[in-house]
Amino acid sequence: MINIAIMGYGVVGSGVAEVLTVNREIIRRRAGDYINIKYILDIREFPGDIHEDKLINDFNIILNDPEIKIVAELMGGVRAALEFTEKALRAKKNVVTSNKELVAYHGDRLLKIACDNGVRYMFEASVGGGIPIIAPLEESLAANDIYEINAIINGTTNYILTAMRNGKLLSDALAEARKNGYAESDPTDDIEGHDSCRKICILAAIAFGVLFEPETVSVKGISSITAEDMAEAERNDRIIKLIARAVRLENDKINICVAPFAINKSNPLAHIDGVYNAVLMKGNAVGDVMFYGKGAGSLPTASSVAADIIHIATCKQKQSCRYIWKRNPDLYVDKLNETQYLHMRETLGEPLGNA
Amino acid sequence: MINIAIMGYGVVGSGVAEVLTVNREIIRRRAGDYINIKYILDIREFPGDIHEDKLINDFNIILNDPEIKIVAELMGGVRAALEFTEKALRAKKNVVTSNKELVAYHGDRLLKIACDNGVRYMFEASVGGGIPIIAPLEESLAANDIYEINAIINGTTNYILTAMRNGKLLSDALAEARKNGYAESDPTDDIEGHDSCRKICILAAIAFGVLFEPETVSVKGISSITAEDMAEAERNDRIIKLIARAVRLENDKINICVAPFAINKSNPLAHIDGVYNAVLMKGNAVGDVMFYGKGAGSLPTASSVAADIIHIATCKQKQSCRYIWKRNPDLYVDKLNETQYLHMRETLGEPLGNA
Repeated sequence: MINIAIMGYGVVGSGVAEVLTVNREIIRRRAGDYINIKYILDIREFPGDIHEDKLINDFNIILNDPEIKIVAELMGGVRAALEFTEKALRAKKNVVTSNKELVAYHGDRLLKIACDNGVRYMFEASVGGGIPIIAPLEESLAANDIYEINAIINGTTNYILTAMRNGKLLSDALAEARKNGYAESDPTDDIEGHDSCRKICILAAIAFGVLFEPETVSVKGISSITAEDMAEAERNDRIIKLIARAVRLENDKINICVAPFAINKSNPLAHIDGVYNAVLMKGNAVGDVMFYGKGAGSLPTASSVAADIIHIATCKQKQSCRYIWKRNPDLYVDKLNETQYLHMRETLGEPLGNA
Repeated sequence: MINIAIMGYGVVGSGVAEVLTVNREIIRRRAGDYINIKYILDIREFPGDIHEDKLINDFNIILNDPEIKIVAELMGGVRAALEFTEKALRAKKNVVTSNKELVAYHGDRLLKIACDNGVRYMFEASVGGGIPIIAPLEESLAANDIYEINAIINGTTNYILTAMRNGKLLSDALAEARKNGYAESDPTDDIEGHDSCRKICILAAIAFGVLFEPETVSVKGISSITAEDMAEAERNDRIIKLIARAVRLENDKINICVAPFAINKSNPLAHIDGVYNAVLMKGNAVGDVMFYGKGAGSLPTASSVAADIIHIATCKQKQSCRYIWKRNPDLYVDKLNETQYLHMRETLGEPLGNA
C-alpha cells in the first residue's frame, strides 16, 4: 500500500480523492499497489464527508510521518504552498501539484531541491488540466528538438471567444461562462491572459530548459476584442483564438507571447471550441503534434494529478535531475524581426492589435 | 554509453539512425547518457552510408553481445521479426518496435516473455507514427477507466478521403497519394481498413487488457465510397472519415469495428485532414482527450522509437508485468444493440453502408 497525503480539499483535492476512490482497482493494477489517502490537510471542516476521518489541519503530521512518500499539493497560491512543498521535498517526499502559479514562479528552485533530495516534483495538472502534455513533452517527444509551441490553454477565454463567434457580446459571453462555472468570480487573470502566460512559461521551461518570469512576457488578453474583429476575421476565413506561444529563434533566443490571433482555419487550433484546450508543438523529428482535451475541472485535473502519483509509484527514475531549469533573462526576445513575424503570420495567423 | 542495435535499415530504421545522430546531444541530456548505435542488422548492403561500419547480417552477433541491452526491431512482418524479438527478449534484452502487425498478432505472448525475463517490450511507434499515444494511454491516463476510443489511424485513407471531399475521384486521389509517397504500391491493406484494424486492436488491448485477433473484427474500407456519398454527407453537415473504433459495453463486452462514418462536424475528428492521424479517447475522469499528428513517415515514426529507447534508458520500471494482455474471444461483440447503436450515431455519426 502506498500512503499519500492530499493538501487542500477544494475543487481539485476532492476530485483527486474521488478518482483515487472510484478507480481504486484500476489504479492498483497500474500502480502495482493500492494508493491509500492517509491524510487530507485543510483548515476547513467537512462534516459528513466520506474522507472526514483523514482530515487534519497540521502540516507537520504529514512532514513527520515516514509512511508518506508522496504528497499532492492542491492548495494553490505561492505562500503556504511554497513553504510546504519545499519542506516536503527536503524531507525526501515526492510532491505532485496542479499549482501553475507555484511552478511558473518557483519551479526551477523546487526542481533543484527535488533533485538534491533524490525525489520528484511533478506537475502534469498545472497545464491543460486533464490533457497529457508535460509527460508527452518530456518523455514521448524526448528525442525531438522542440522549437515551437502554440497553445489554447485557458478555457474561460476560449469559451467566451467561441460564444462571441456565435454572435454573443463579450459581456454576455462572460456572464454565461460565469453561470456555467467556467469563469472565476474575478476573471481578470483569465481574460487578460495572465493565466495563459504562466502556463506557457511552464511549457517553454520544459521545452527549452529556461524559465522566464511571467512578468517579462508580452501579454494581451481578449477584453478589447469586438464583434467587428470577429466579423473581420470571418471575412478573411480566420477564427480568433487567444494563443499562448513560445518559439526558439536563432542563437537560442526565445520569444514568448500571449495574444489573440486571427488564425488560419487550416490550423487545427482553429477548431478547438468552448472550454477545451489544445497544445500544438513542433519538433524536428515528429513535425506537428497536438494534444486536446478538457483544460480544467475537478475530475480532469485530478486525472493528471493521479497519473503523476502512479508514475512515482511505478517508475524509479535513474536520473531525477535531468530537467533542471535555468534562468536567463538575456535569452528573452520581446519583438520578432520582420522575417520571424512574417513566418508567424503565414503559419499561424495575424496577431490582433499591437501584439 | 548505452549500446543499441537496430534491426532493419529501411524507412523507419534509417529514420531512427538519423534522429539518434542529429539529436544526439538533446537525447543524451534526456536519457542521461549517450545512445550509441553499435549494430545495424540488414541483409542488404549500403555502400557509402555513414553507418556502413555498423552493418551486420547475422542476428546472433546482437544476441550474443552482452553490451546490447536494447534492440529496435524495425524489420516489419511476422516471421523473422517474431523469431528475433522472442530470442532477444529471452536473452534479457529490451525490445522496441514499430511493427504493428507483430504487436497485433503476437503482442500478448511477447509482453509475457518480456515480463518473465524482466525486460520491456515497447511499441509506441506501432500506432500513430510520431504521435504519443501508447505512453499517454498507459501512463498519463492510468488513473482513468478508458471506455471508448475513436481513431483516424491510417494516413493513406485519410489523404484520399480529404482529396475526395475536395472534389477528386477515389482513383485519382489514390494515384495522387501514390505520387506523393502516401500510399504503398499495393495499398489494399490501407484502403480496405486492415491496417487500421491492427492498430485499433493494439489500442483496445492497452485500454481493456484484452487482445482480439484482427480477423474477428468487423472491417469495412473506403473502396466503395462515392462522390454521391461525399455530397450527401456534406448536405447533412457531416464529413466522411475512416474510423477505427473500440468501445467497452455492458458486462465488459467489447465492440471493435473499422468503417467509414459520416461524422458530425462538431467532433474534433472531423477536422483531421490529409495524412494526419488522431486518436480520441474517453476516460471516466478525463472526459474526451485527443492526440493528433503525423501517423507515418520516417522521422515521425523514428521519434516514437527513440522515445521508447530513452524511456528504457531512464525508467527502471518496478513492475514490467502490469500490462499483460489476455485473449478472450467471448468478450467480442460484433453488433451493437439498438441503444448502443443510437448512442454511437448521436455522439460520433452514421456508419456508411452496412457497417
